[in-house]
Amino acid sequence: MRIQVPDQSSGRLSDAWRFCVGTGRFELALRRDYQDSLALIQREVGFRHIRGHGLLSDGVGIYRPYSYQGSRQVRYAFTYVDQVIDAYLELGIAPFIELGFMPRELASGEQTVFWWAGNVTPPSSWTQWAALVRATIAHLVDRYGIDQVRGWPIEVWNEPNLKEFWADADQDVYHLLYEVTASAVKEVDASLQVGGPAISPGADEWLVRFADFVAQRGLPIDFVSRHAYTSGPAQHVPFGVHQTLAPATDLLAQFARPREQLRGSALDGLPVHITEFNSSYRPDNPIHDTAFHAAYLAPVVAGGGDLVDSFAYWTFSDMFEEIGVPTALFHGGFGLLTHRQIKKPTYHLYAFMARMGDQLLARGEDHLVTRDADGRVTVLAWAPVFPAAGDSHLLRLSIPLAGKESGPAFGLRSRVNEQMGNAWAAWNEMGRPLSVRPRQLETLREVAEPVRSHSQLSIAAGRVELDLVLDRHEVTLVEITAVKDETPPWWDDDRMLG
Amino acid sequence: MRIQVPDQSSGRLSDAWRFCVGTGRFELALRRDYQDSLALIQREVGFRHIRGHGLLSDGVGIYRPYSYQGSRQVRYAFTYVDQVIDAYLELGIAPFIELGFMPRELASGEQTVFWWAGNVTPPSSWTQWAALVRATIAHLVDRYGIDQVRGWPIEVWNEPNLKEFWADADQDVYHLLYEVTASAVKEVDASLQVGGPAISPGADEWLVRFADFVAQRGLPIDFVSRHAYTSGPAQHVPFGVHQTLAPATDLLAQFARPREQLRGSALDGLPVHITEFNSSYRPDNPIHDTAFHAAYLAPVVAGGGDLVDSFAYWTFSDMFEEIGVPTALFHGGFGLLTHRQIKKPTYHLYAFMARMGDQLLARGEDHLVTRDADGRVTVLAWAPVFPAAGDSHLLRLSIPLAGKESGPAFGLRSRVNEQMGNAWAAWNEMGRPLSVRPRQLETLREVAEPVRSHSQLSIAAGRVELDLVLDRHEVTLVEITAVKDETPPWWDDDRMLG
Amino acid sequence: MRIQVPDQSSGRLSDAWRFCVGTGRFELALRRDYQDSLALIQREVGFRHIRGHGLLSDGVGIYRPYSYQGSRQVRYAFTYVDQVIDAYLELGIAPFIELGFMPRELASGEQTVFWWAGNVTPPSSWTQWAALVRATIAHLVDRYGIDQVRGWPIEVWNEPNLKEFWADADQDVYHLLYEVTASAVKEVDASLQVGGPAISPGADEWLVRFADFVAQRGLPIDFVSRHAYTSGPAQHVPFGVHQTLAPATDLLAQFARPREQLRGSALDGLPVHITEFNSSYRPDNPIHDTAFHAAYLAPVVAGGGDLVDSFAYWTFSDMFEEIGVPTALFHGGFGLLTHRQIKKPTYHLYAFMARMGDQLLARGEDHLVTRDADGRVTVLAWAPVFPAAGDSHLLRLSIPLAGKESGPAFGLRSRVNEQMGNAWAAWNEMGRPLSVRPRQLETLREVAEPVRSHSQLSIAAGRVELDLVLDRHEVTLVEITAVKDETPPWWDDDRMLG
Amino acid sequence: MRIQVPDQSSGRLSDAWRFCVGTGRFELALRRDYQDSLALIQREVGFRHIRGHGLLSDGVGIYRPYSYQGSRQVRYAFTYVDQVIDAYLELGIAPFIELGFMPRELASGEQTVFWWAGNVTPPSSWTQWAALVRATIAHLVDRYGIDQVRGWPIEVWNEPNLKEFWADADQDVYHLLYEVTASAVKEVDASLQVGGPAISPGADEWLVRFADFVAQRGLPIDFVSRHAYTSGPAQHVPFGVHQTLAPATDLLAQFARPREQLRGSALDGLPVHITEFNSSYRPDNPIHDTAFHAAYLAPVVAGGGDLVDSFAYWTFSDMFEEIGVPTALFHGGFGLLTHRQIKKPTYHLYAFMARMGDQLLARGEDHLVTRDADGRVTVLAWAPVFPAAGDSHLLRLSIPLAGKESGPAFGLRSRVNEQMGNAWAAWNEMGRPLSVRPRQLETLREVAEPVRSHSQLSIAAGRVELDLVLDRHEVTLVEITAVKDETPPWWDDDRMLG
Repeated sequence: MRIQVPDQSSGRLSDAWRFCVGTGRFELALRRDYQDSLALIQREVGFRHIRGHGLLSDGVGIYRPYSYQGSRQVRYAFTYVDQVIDAYLELGIAPFIELGFMPRELASGEQTVFWWAGNVTPPSSWTQWAALVRATIAHLVDRYGIDQVRGWPIEVWNEPNLKEFWADADQDVYHLLYEVTASAVKEVDASLQVGGPAISPGADEWLVRFADFVAQRGLPIDFVSRHAYTSGPAQHVPFGVHQTLAPATDLLAQFARPREQLRGSALDGLPVHITEFNSSYRPDNPIHDTAFHAAYLAPVVAGGGDLVDSFAYWTFSDMFEEIGVPTALFHGGFGLLTHRQIKKPTYHLYAFMARMGDQLLARGEDHLVTRDADGRVTVLAWAPVFPAAGDSHLLRLSIPLAGKESGPAFGLRSRVNEQMGNAWAAWNEMGRPLSVRPRQLETLREVAEPVRSHSQLSIAAGRVELDLVLDRHEVTLVEITAVKDETPPWWDDDRMLG
Repeated sequence: MRIQVPDQSSGRLSDAWRFCVGTGRFELALRRDYQDSLALIQREVGFRHIRGHGLLSDGVGIYRPYSYQGSRQVRYAFTYVDQVIDAYLELGIAPFIELGFMPRELASGEQTVFWWAGNVTPPSSWTQWAALVRATIAHLVDRYGIDQVRGWPIEVWNEPNLKEFWADADQDVYHLLYEVTASAVKEVDASLQVGGPAISPGADEWLVRFADFVAQRGLPIDFVSRHAYTSGPAQHVPFGVHQTLAPATDLLAQFARPREQLRGSALDGLPVHITEFNSSYRPDNPIHDTAFHAAYLAPVVAGGGDLVDSFAYWTFSDMFEEIGVPTALFHGGFGLLTHRQIKKPTYHLYAFMARMGDQLLARGEDHLVTRDADGRVTVLAWAPVFPAAGDSHLLRLSIPLAGKESGPAFGLRSRVNEQMGNAWAAWNEMGRPLSVRPRQLETLREVAEPVRSHSQLSIAAGRVELDLVLDRHEVTLVEITAVKDETPPWWDDDRMLG
Repeated sequence: MRIQVPDQSSGRLSDAWRFCVGTGRFELALRRDYQDSLALIQREVGFRHIRGHGLLSDGVGIYRPYSYQGSRQVRYAFTYVDQVIDAYLELGIAPFIELGFMPRELASGEQTVFWWAGNVTPPSSWTQWAALVRATIAHLVDRYGIDQVRGWPIEVWNEPNLKEFWADADQDVYHLLYEVTASAVKEVDASLQVGGPAISPGADEWLVRFADFVAQRGLPIDFVSRHAYTSGPAQHVPFGVHQTLAPATDLLAQFARPREQLRGSALDGLPVHITEFNSSYRPDNPIHDTAFHAAYLAPVVAGGGDLVDSFAYWTFSDMFEEIGVPTALFHGGFGLLTHRQIKKPTYHLYAFMARMGDQLLARGEDHLVTRDADGRVTVLAWAPVFPAAGDSHLLRLSIPLAGKESGPAFGLRSRVNEQMGNAWAAWNEMGRPLSVRPRQLETLREVAEPVRSHSQLSIAAGRVELDLVLDRHEVTLVEITAVKDETPPWWDDDRMLG
Repeated sequence: MRIQVPDQSSGRLSDAWRFCVGTGRFELALRRDYQDSLALIQREVGFRHIRGHGLLSDGVGIYRPYSYQGSRQVRYAFTYVDQVIDAYLELGIAPFIELGFMPRELASGEQTVFWWAGNVTPPSSWTQWAALVRATIAHLVDRYGIDQVRGWPIEVWNEPNLKEFWADADQDVYHLLYEVTASAVKEVDASLQVGGPAISPGADEWLVRFADFVAQRGLPIDFVSRHAYTSGPAQHVPFGVHQTLAPATDLLAQFARPREQLRGSALDGLPVHITEFNSSYRPDNPIHDTAFHAAYLAPVVAGGGDLVDSFAYWTFSDMFEEIGVPTALFHGGFGLLTHRQIKKPTYHLYAFMARMGDQLLARGEDHLVTRDADGRVTVLAWAPVFPAAGDSHLLRLSIPLAGKESGPAFGLRSRVNEQMGNAWAAWNEMGRPLSVRPRQLETLREVAEPVRSHSQLSIAAGRVELDLVLDRHEVTLVEITAVKDETPPWWDDDRMLG
């Protein structure tokens, strides 16, 4: 059966998918590979915001107590903050600020998270914490201007519902943290946007309690946030894990939860940000590197914007050290890009999204069709992976070319699947080298590009009939433009050799 | 039948193919598009020298007579010469100097060639001409050092056997020009390399007479040069021509002629440079833009080095104005690259050659096989175009992997044919737009890349059996490397989803 | 006597000085040196528009008649137009379009102007001319969008009052040209801005007649334009000229003339653009290279904005060929930059202007004082050159620091004069080499930078007292900022060595 | 008294000063600011090698034990090693390898040094340590080739004579470490260069004992190394220290010690590398940022090459974290450059050295004079700082211009002192801002450049008489070149205005 794509747009395609992207801890942004990757991704995808952990941790070095003439004082040092945010803004991306974790010298305990040892205990002094928050936000406002900083959401802590991230996962103490922090932010400027509680999946009860607390205390809140992942428990092998995955629809269901839960509450109607999402929450699961992953997430990226104001892919780059320094080029990292800018299949899913038009024409379980102001129609298609991916998948579309009844159209197809646009597959074939040689790197860059094909299509009755056969785990982009034929009357292909 | 590629190399692959490349007139090198194209080509191909017309013509502005206190004097101005040669050297390429044409104020007549009006008459003063040559070469030696300039061949004029390029095609006057010019060059430094007569095809009698003249007069000569083209008469259409082409073997026969003719003469054994070659000699023949052209020239580029010391593709870029400013992105120009760096199929033929190893293993009518120091084997294969190209061409090779008896190998294939790596085909499908829009340009850049595929091959008895099916007008590169398998024992593809 | 700079701004500083800058002929913009210079100047000065000759001349190759099946037709080719304007927009500058000169195949005569032979005769067919104008403007609108092109002024021809630029300087024929051209422009889109008559100095009678003609015929007109120069007749030496110069006030008087002349006419109130100005109109007058020139023009650049909507320095770069290829690095060219980006003193005058604030505080015969939104006060000062420059010039200012009663201020001074920031002086000392060596080039770049000094100033009663001694032909920039002292209490300069 | 610089060179100027430079810990090289700084310094100075701590520490992630099927195994991961060394080689600098510190999982104890916690205890397994060393060096040889790696000196540990750097400063255990390590290195390839003991000042007895040990055991050794510093005890203030400094001659004395001590020993004649030197050994002593520092070190950099094979300035950049993240732009760091590439006065000392010729003409207590192959004479002069710097210092030189008896010479002077080329002075005047604003950064970059002046000098009797007045703490470079005068006969400065 051929799907008839309607002539008229049903509205604008949401760009919630590009509102934010995740990153490894704050000071990794000082690295050149990180910035090279971000520059590439901004050129070809173009995210608006970037969010990661560790702004207030010791590696960034903001909180610097010292003793002078017998009294304890604090210097706030923004040496690295300035370098990172200057770099972000030059690259056309702005921070989505996460306030955390605890500077060691302000911490009430020793508990840390990650290889890089972020302290996750409450402050030893709430006054000092508030001062730290105020000093940090005030510095940003002073350096970058309130007009700009007002657009940067500020989130209080990360996944406080997990013991790994917040001592004892104590919600009451988190509520206190929220109150002190949000108030400190608003003291700097009431127009700044603050929110929380940045909970992980599986903590539905937190949000309602949080909403009640905020409402009851009349606290400022500009958005609510949570995370979404679909993987089962980690089955460890050395330097890696394997996990089962719930269907991608489960991700969409997680996206939808906050609005459902807050319906009728005092926080009803607030913007909802999914400040992290991915399949697996592990940075060493090879699934992240595969074509399967792109096909798995395609319906999520194509459709998530109906449910939330943003959903941030965790993370843009494999430059990430939560479980230590990666030991191989492909190591199952979260990144859309590996170290040294090898594009993974999921990178292309985002790059394809960036080529979609802003008018939504159609969306189905295996496709998304848009049009842009110039009349170009763009089709994103994917081979569904659940219940089980077949070796090929057929999609038949009838596509309207606005205002052109007949004549030729130009079609460009870009393919990513088990063989095409798949550097991971090539790396496997190369024998999975831990350290790739320069020539291998060059090869991986080449084979990481989507395979392109092009053809002249026929418009009949204002439509192009498109039959797409997708290979296993394929994500395909087709761009169709009506041709304005400038061929001169004397052109004769048969005379190429006289 | 499967071709058994021998284990042992039969010698080094000559790099005569990359010794030199042609260019439009000298001052076009001041342009950014020109330099962008040359930078790209140097990165991916890497020519040694570059040769074009017009160094001494008015657009470069060297020869500047003036009057002071009643007497006529000459200033030699190297403003543009320095800018161009500085740029060349920064890009890792050195000039192959062609001395010509005649500055208008030193000319004996009005006859010009090309849209840009190069004067092709003998000098009005041989003394002044010699002074101009000396001043120019001395300036180069002074600025760049004799160690460097000694490596830059210096050719006297261009195609003096044609009336268009040398008044009356008068060979005796050319001989005088050669004598005066070669002597002037050697006065600057005896170690400089000078040569000629840079004749076009179809003037076999010139070379013998030239050799006799040089020998008889005891003139300095360090190399001989001629050109090679295979096209028939131009059949004009507006902004274009069509021409018949002789088989590519005819090009090789032309390459071979100088050595044949000079055998036994005083010039026997001198280096021979084919300072221009191409199929058609017209910059408006669309054949230059096609996949046919790459397949047609493949055996020439693969084999020409046996016959001569260099053969220079005419030219690297469509930035070329002999018949005026091009009116469309694809216009049948000589370039390996169009304006704005769209790669043509023939570009890839050169880029593929640049990936060949330096040990020659096998060469046939549809293939060239090499190995490099690391053991990587590279196969260049092409679908023969004469007598008539079929829709597909099969090549079966048995390839030795030095020192590896069994196990996996990694194979990377890069394809260019009527559909793949063929921006011209896409431009045709786009309706042949004269002025391409930015998005079209981006699309053309994308589809101009070869289509890559990769696979894991099996080594058995030290060999990989390779069956290549080539599409119409295809040129293919296959790179094969033995795999050093680093797969850890716990790797299990079946556990990707837990 | 000390000048009391007022506390309150008397208004915004006009930016007419940066609205437009001149350039050599259109296709020179294809050159890399040209684009490198423009990139530098856009980074440090930031002009809005750029205007030069030759868009329609043969070097750009737009007008391309051909014969097909017995009839004469015309192809319009925008190959170079697109490359140039794409480059301009990337560099943040937009064209100020000058329509001229005449394509040779559309010309009614043979008369040309300049070394590059621009044809200056009326069209042989007014219909074909109108078609050429429409096709060109329509192409720009199609490619760049009407929203953008609407902001690009379109000027009809150049200096038609001079026989060199318009056959017989025939005003009636120019009026016809204006009528046909302006109408053709407006046919493309009525919101486009068209104007003229682009007259040279010394043709005051033309403007009134032109205004009458336009009014009487009810023709579209959006701005009027003229040029301004102050040099006397050329006294030739080889490769150069010397000329007397009228005082710079004469330039301001020329700027003021159009508004005076049009007062009460139908064109009263139209924007006035000085589409070219300079001291000498010769591209081989060494005065352009000197510190004198910067000091001479300083009051013009500082004050011209009161009189006109723009005044365009002719030209930004020495990449300019009206009298042929320059024969030396410094050759008296118009450029703010030489070839290879050596900054001339007048470059710094513009770079200093680009650092002025937008609030005008004071302006005098030797100074301009502004403030910006951050409270920074900027002083541009110059040593007057007429009637005769002394060896030093004293300027005493009392400068208000808004909102800061006392404490330190930071002052940065940047100086250009006969010795400082003066590459031409160094080149003279080097023996005036025609072709500079790489090390000399590096030295010239270094000494071309202004000499900077800095100090801590004292604010008393909200003011800083500034005594500036300017050397001969000096232009100085002083930037003063109130200091926010972050020195910690333990700082002790005397303990640097323990 | 005027110093007569001799006509004849007394030999080549040693380039021991540029053989090596110091750096913060290994993985800081991943940062963009670090690489930007190194790129700048390589362009303007050009060091050969770079040496820092931490290659084997956990932040680089090489040593990765894991458990598989019940047994403990080790993976060696070179992810960051490759990224850093690839970057180094691209920037034209090669590692001077320091083997240390101890991976935590291979350590025998908990003791660490620095904010970044390098473990300084002996290995828990000497076998595993040897395996780690072999794997690391073998990887480098495999990736970069033995021809290259053979040129990279390999040093065993850092300052083992200090308890902070080596548990208990136990020399016997260090000897064991040396034996195991040097042997492991040589197992990879006998041509690799290995050395030690990298001792700090004040441990003279170590070197003799080390020499005896190595000789007695017949161990491989290719060079000996030590460090040199001249500061007294740290007098702490918050975020800083003050220290007394011994005269710079004391540094030279320290350089000389190893050769003195080894004279007659088995190690006599081995290359000696001072693998670290500076005034203060503290990264928070503001003396590093001053003009005093450049003048203080000038005689050391000018003369150290007579005493040793290299002496490496510790360090090239303020990107350095041994005592934590710097809290201000200027914070007394070791760097020649601050974060964001502000050049300190000592940077210019090195940049000036890079402009010296290779023939040594004269050296004194306040000057160094060289000539290069082109005849250019270069004078490095400095105002002595001990016993006490005066406000000005006069140096009178008579300088031979080889082969030119009379006529003009071009002189270029570049000055750095308390006011000139001194960004630290400007930063002080700005109120010592911790976090500099973009405009302040731009100003600091501008005022950090040396102040240049130029003049035409007279050659008489083959000599130029040069009187240099140096300001307090000044380092000056003067470059003198004989002028080849190309001034045309018609040039007349008096006719500039006609």
